[in-house]
Amino acid sequence: MKLIIAIVPDEIAEAAVPGLLAAGLRVTRVASTGGFLRRGNTTLLLGLPPEQVDAALGLLRSVYQGNVTLEAGRGTAFVLDVDRFEQL
Amino acid sequence: MKLIIAIVPDEIAEAAVPGLLAAGLRVTRVASTGGFLRRGNTTLLLGLPPEQVDAALGLLRSVYQGNVTLEAGRGTAFVLDVDRFEQL
Amino acid sequence: MKLIIAIVPDEIAEAAVPGLLAAGLRVTRVASTGGFLRRGNTTLLLGLPPEQVDAALGLLRSVYQGNVTLEAGRGTAFVLDVDRFEQL
Repeated sequence: MKLIIAIVPDEIAEAAVPGLLAAGLRVTRVASTGGFLRRGNTTLLLGLPPEQVDAALGLLRSVYQGNVTLEAGRGTAFVLDVDRFEQL
Repeated sequence: MKLIIAIVPDEIAEAAVPGLLAAGLRVTRVASTGGFLRRGNTTLLLGLPPEQVDAALGLLRSVYQGNVTLEAGRGTAFVLDVDRFEQL
Repeated sequence: MKLIIAIVPDEIAEAAVPGLLAAGLRVTRVASTGGFLRRGNTTLLLGLPPEQVDAALGLLRSVYQGNVTLEAGRGTAFVLDVDRFEQL
């Protein structure tokens, strides 16, 4: 299992989440801010099997490519190894 | 050291935190949302020694078992290895 | 790449972020709460190369040392290994 922590502009999160959910991924959104101006962004938490990481990152990237008016900066994604994943 | 990132319905967090604190764990709560409906949930961060992970997960699970009216869905927990843990 | 998840009192975050940004680090802030009293604190996410971890932790610690009126408790930092880091 992997955990993706992706920090993206709000409009990217807004546009990406439906596709991520449609791909069967569970997505958690956390409101966050970045930089000097405390611009609002969204921190997405995505738990997924290793073989789905590339598809999830590709889906996030595709949303950037479709967003010509993006003004809030780019984003970053951290992929972490998960020692244990538990359904509660 | 391990870090548990648990995403649970708000009422589970509400009911679980006192027990987690009573067990001597430090708990941080982050407001989050999940799914299409952006239902509110809570992301809990718990830093703890490896030998306490099972007890913490067990405590979270026990709260579900006592909550017969739970309507906000289940939860998930990611247990991550911590490379370094520092008191500031 | 490493990911620091630091949970600190709001006033520490406030005082530390300019220095972290000036050091060229990207900082994401998440509002969080801790303990029984749900005291507000801030969860900082910092992605950085391994060789910058000590400097970032030192910068956070130096802010505590300059804050004589700190009443909101101490802080903790988790340093996690990052399997993959991706610019989006």
